[in-house]
Amino acid sequence: MSNRFNSIQSEFQISYRYEVFFTKHLFAVNNLVLCDFFNLKEQEGTKKKVLVVVDDGILLHQKNIREAIQTYFETNVTSVQLVKNILTIPGGENAKNQNEFWELVSSAISEYGIDRHSYVMAIGGGAFLDMVGFATAVSHRGIRLIRIPTTVLSQNDSGVGVKNSINYLGKKNFLGTFAPPVAVFNDSSFLVSLDERDWRSGIAEAVKVSLIKEETFFRWIESNVQSLVNRDIGVMEQLVFDCARLHIEHIRSGDPFEFGSSRPLDFGHWFAHKLEYLSNFSIRHGEAVAVGIALDSIYSFLCGDLEEKEYLRILRLLLGLGFTLNFPILLEKGKENLEIALEEFREHLGGKLTLLMLDGIGKPKEVYTMDHSILMSAFDIMVNFR
Amino acid sequence: MSNRFNSIQSEFQISYRYEVFFTKHLFAVNNLVLCDFFNLKEQEGTKKKVLVVVDDGILLHQKNIREAIQTYFETNVTSVQLVKNILTIPGGENAKNQNEFWELVSSAISEYGIDRHSYVMAIGGGAFLDMVGFATAVSHRGIRLIRIPTTVLSQNDSGVGVKNSINYLGKKNFLGTFAPPVAVFNDSSFLVSLDERDWRSGIAEAVKVSLIKEETFFRWIESNVQSLVNRDIGVMEQLVFDCARLHIEHIRSGDPFEFGSSRPLDFGHWFAHKLEYLSNFSIRHGEAVAVGIALDSIYSFLCGDLEEKEYLRILRLLLGLGFTLNFPILLEKGKENLEIALEEFREHLGGKLTLLMLDGIGKPKEVYTMDHSILMSAFDIMVNFR
Repeated sequence: MSNRFNSIQSEFQISYRYEVFFTKHLFAVNNLVLCDFFNLKEQEGTKKKVLVVVDDGILLHQKNIREAIQTYFETNVTSVQLVKNILTIPGGENAKNQNEFWELVSSAISEYGIDRHSYVMAIGGGAFLDMVGFATAVSHRGIRLIRIPTTVLSQNDSGVGVKNSINYLGKKNFLGTFAPPVAVFNDSSFLVSLDERDWRSGIAEAVKVSLIKEETFFRWIESNVQSLVNRDIGVMEQLVFDCARLHIEHIRSGDPFEFGSSRPLDFGHWFAHKLEYLSNFSIRHGEAVAVGIALDSIYSFLCGDLEEKEYLRILRLLLGLGFTLNFPILLEKGKENLEIALEEFREHLGGKLTLLMLDGIGKPKEVYTMDHSILMSAFDIMVNFR
Repeated sequence: MSNRFNSIQSEFQISYRYEVFFTKHLFAVNNLVLCDFFNLKEQEGTKKKVLVVVDDGILLHQKNIREAIQTYFETNVTSVQLVKNILTIPGGENAKNQNEFWELVSSAISEYGIDRHSYVMAIGGGAFLDMVGFATAVSHRGIRLIRIPTTVLSQNDSGVGVKNSINYLGKKNFLGTFAPPVAVFNDSSFLVSLDERDWRSGIAEAVKVSLIKEETFFRWIESNVQSLVNRDIGVMEQLVFDCARLHIEHIRSGDPFEFGSSRPLDFGHWFAHKLEYLSNFSIRHGEAVAVGIALDSIYSFLCGDLEEKEYLRILRLLLGLGFTLNFPILLEKGKENLEIALEEFREHLGGKLTLLMLDGIGKPKEVYTMDHSILMSAFDIMVNFR
């Protein structure tokens, strides 16, 4: 066979762009943020449809949300056509455990003729958005997704990112894709009705991102602990904004679809995933991340990278925010699961084990192994910290 | 709320690169194309695994292919670790109809610890590759996929492209993603054992791409009709190479993930999809595409865009290659389904109806409507053409 038959290279780039809006009372008829978004898209050709899917947990606090959405579209939005039947589907981790839930979304996409240029608008917590995002990404090879996250954690972290997933074969996030949304609307009025654990839980991701990205943000959180504990919504809005900003900056300047081995946003996460699982998900993601942050900060101190006063500031901040570092399940099963957690983390991400530790507050450092005895000592210091 | 809370833009690009290799006897121990590919990737860190999945139709003609693969890896490939259990799964359209098949692939990915930096190597026809590609794209948010297409159609068209899919809710390709492979190996020795219909069927995509991209390629096919009918493998290798080359050039210079409305590679396809369905898939994709090409070429002539001698050359080429333009199901149900087919095509792609017609051989033209009575006349001319 002649040389000309040897091979052909295919090489191209795909551009993504989405906007994260920060607002209050998104569906109040005098709030035009959502309406303006759709009107800007109007010129593209045929009239598009919008299928709305709501986390049924939202109905506990806003039982008229479906009517509010209908009124909003009737009053303000002429550029797209709202599908009359607004779906409600259970949220929380269970939404990701059973195929029936994402299949409900895909079936509705089929039934209502939602095409690749139409929209699915998902309103709910992080797990719910993960599940709807998966259905949306794989139907017609990708329907346009609008996320409206309703918890601190989803507004400042997963909801502004580029991933979706469901659990499969008993493995968390085993099925999923990288599929950026077309827009995210962070409405702080959803945060007011969160219970105390959900309010606090999302703050852990802000502490995390401050530690690896921006020392000034860490100091700002330190100086606002009391306001956060007292549920000052203005302070929370600022925290959500800055955390989302750092998260987005990281995604767009890094490796958004994670083709490499490095996962710099996963500081404090290798053990957090295991702890959630060990507690049968009774410990929330943010609560587990707080433990992971504490453990890796102490480890960084014991390795001589982080100063003593720095790791103490971090642990005191976490306790000041109300996080727990000595859950009974930690004392019972934590130590024996440290090495297992490291290997599972490596396997899920693929490639070489790559972790972030701290060289200082706001100064991350990549490492590729952890010393077992130092890790054990760090664990002991953590669970006994007062 | 102050202005600084308004919004944050996220904007980034993702780069993709893959190579399509053309070879013979890929698993002969003295063929180092595959081995060299893996060795080039060796330096990335941990040792990667390769899970091989074979279309069981291949075993009819190459019943020792699993042993050949094992010997090849044992002899040549030290840089990756072959999973000993080589899966065989049914191919053909049915592979895409039942969830159990893609779930077999995802379960194996889980069971054998195939991580995001490891490989799934899929060997089979177009439908089989679509199905394995779907499982691979959604497991761990994307395992590296190596495609080894075994039919003319998959070697020159779908197998070198960026899509995957399964059928769902009775809708063809309803679930799927855009996910480029990391490499494609086109081995012409698989083509020798194809039955006559599969040999011919794939030629339709070459005719199609020549009509919309390259007049010289059209003339080359015209001058090689007899060699193609006589199953000259050298001529077929050249046809596959040039068709793949034009297909890849189109993808990388256009809109690879089809965010817009234009689908320039779908010339002749709007009616082909419907015809496959009407025949309950007894008419193969390429056979249906030949009908679609004929119909749209006559339509282009009747609209005054294509010269009479040009449309006659196209129809004579199709008949010369052995394609049928008057299937019984066409005579029975074709006409009444023309408008339905147009609407379904628009709906699946989303957005505004956008079709290609011809301004000349090698000269495409975008249109946004079709004239019903001209379409009916084109249909009559086609089914009566001798």
